[in-house]
Amino acid sequence: MSRALVIGSVALDSVETPYGKVDSALGGSASYGSVAASYFAPTALVAVVGKDFPSKYLRLFKRRRVDLSGLTVEDGETFHWSGFYETTMSQAFTNTTCLNVFEKFRPDLTAEQARQRFVFLANIDPALQEYVVNQLVNPDLVVLDTMNFWIEGSKQQLTRVIKRSTVVLMNEEEARQYCETRSLVKAGQQLLKLGPRSVVIKKGEHGSLIFQKEGIFAVPAFPLRRMKDPTGAGDTFAGSLTGYVARLGKATDENVRRAVFVGTAMASFVVEDFSLNRTMRVQPKEFQERIAALTKMSTLPKLNPRTLKPQAL
Amino acid sequence: MSRALVIGSVALDSVETPYGKVDSALGGSASYGSVAASYFAPTALVAVVGKDFPSKYLRLFKRRRVDLSGLTVEDGETFHWSGFYETTMSQAFTNTTCLNVFEKFRPDLTAEQARQRFVFLANIDPALQEYVVNQLVNPDLVVLDTMNFWIEGSKQQLTRVIKRSTVVLMNEEEARQYCETRSLVKAGQQLLKLGPRSVVIKKGEHGSLIFQKEGIFAVPAFPLRRMKDPTGAGDTFAGSLTGYVARLGKATDENVRRAVFVGTAMASFVVEDFSLNRTMRVQPKEFQERIAALTKMSTLPKLNPRTLKPQAL
Repeated sequence: MSRALVIGSVALDSVETPYGKVDSALGGSASYGSVAASYFAPTALVAVVGKDFPSKYLRLFKRRRVDLSGLTVEDGETFHWSGFYETTMSQAFTNTTCLNVFEKFRPDLTAEQARQRFVFLANIDPALQEYVVNQLVNPDLVVLDTMNFWIEGSKQQLTRVIKRSTVVLMNEEEARQYCETRSLVKAGQQLLKLGPRSVVIKKGEHGSLIFQKEGIFAVPAFPLRRMKDPTGAGDTFAGSLTGYVARLGKATDENVRRAVFVGTAMASFVVEDFSLNRTMRVQPKEFQERIAALTKMSTLPKLNPRTLKPQAL
Repeated sequence: MSRALVIGSVALDSVETPYGKVDSALGGSASYGSVAASYFAPTALVAVVGKDFPSKYLRLFKRRRVDLSGLTVEDGETFHWSGFYETTMSQAFTNTTCLNVFEKFRPDLTAEQARQRFVFLANIDPALQEYVVNQLVNPDLVVLDTMNFWIEGSKQQLTRVIKRSTVVLMNEEEARQYCETRSLVKAGQQLLKLGPRSVVIKKGEHGSLIFQKEGIFAVPAFPLRRMKDPTGAGDTFAGSLTGYVARLGKATDENVRRAVFVGTAMASFVVEDFSLNRTMRVQPKEFQERIAALTKMSTLPKLNPRTLKPQAL
């Protein structure tokens, strides 16, 4: 069975939203990404934590059978992010970012890790993402996530990694910012021209747009009445996507579209609670129900071509 | 064959967008609505204009065989709106609104008009919309559109019309404002509880959400690389919807979903030029191509249920 490899950050997050707060809860792009991927494929994690990293979180990864042989424990403290969301929760505000041991993170893959074919480069410095891509022997799927910080500060480096990725993920604002256009259609097409086989623009409650050679595809968001904490939604989406393509065994464009659907369903859980609380409790039945609901809501009744002709004048 | 009846405003619009400007061009909710409806069903218009209304615009309606027996010509000037859009074109700004003859508009239907079964109440004072509904003998479809102005100033009156409509249309901000919630899911469900069989929340470039007893459905927007003038998109959407359901002959929930699709395709044309310039030039073939493109972009590959089970731990 194909495996998934997730490289990114493991962090302790202190987050406040209108629905509550948590202190030093498990966070980081690779935590969300690897746990999500582990639903669909055996998953290995490459990241770094400090000596303070709580053993309960190591046990959490182990409950999902995440391979932690690539998780280095360094002298020092774990990456810590503290932030909050206001009423609309459309944007994260940062109080403090303490990189700590993450500052010297150098993702050196073992020979076995370098042979993995389904890889999620979660949001970290694009220089490190490129360092990882350079080590991959024969990847079939490289999923790339990023954030506004790198678009502003490391655009050239980021562009180099985009060119070597199979699936590039950006949210609406990131795509607009990177492509310097208001039009998401133009942005998606512009990114596609850089080389990736798929570009996915994530639009939160509005779902996502998939740009491929064959055309543009739209996937709706799962309609939630309330979310508690949006942290990790994008990482969960990308991790599930990677894990699901690994399960299918081949990164065809069609499989990537399938995987966007699966990622959408899985990401709808993580925002229902803080940290990985909800993700860890997802039951197969409720996951399948959300897939069914998403399928139904994007299925439209057939149109009879005869009824589409303009009335004779 | 069933006919469509459109009641609303006919106006002369002076509009400026980043892509150009027009002076005293044909505008108004019922102009866009009736011309769009006329593609699919014989359409009658109920509205008022002044003595200054240019005969070229009367000829425009006649080219689409719009029945103008309900278009009153009053002493005075035609309703005139002047406004502009900024770079993002997400919002119309008003310079001046001169109601003129529209101020005394009293939509008295003829006996034949009152028997029409497929009716679009385009955006006007909800008191007038209610006045129309009271005259309808046996409507099968009442499509209701409105705007923030009435939500702010005439909410009770508007609520009464919502309760008597079959399909209620609001854009994102209107739905949030009317329902006093940030959540579109909550807003849609709340509006549905008032009695309409369908609630359609229009989200511009993000497509639309349809709320029905059976569930929520998502229709993507047609991906445009550029729009010139967003004026009339909502009216065109609603007019096509009404006309298409009239053509199908019965306002079942499924037909309304079909009609949202058709409205989405038709509305994608109107924004490509000012006023009704583009709508009047829509060719059957290009309309059918947009329907095909929308169908393709919302069609997702089948998921094998076996692949959705979480991996055994």
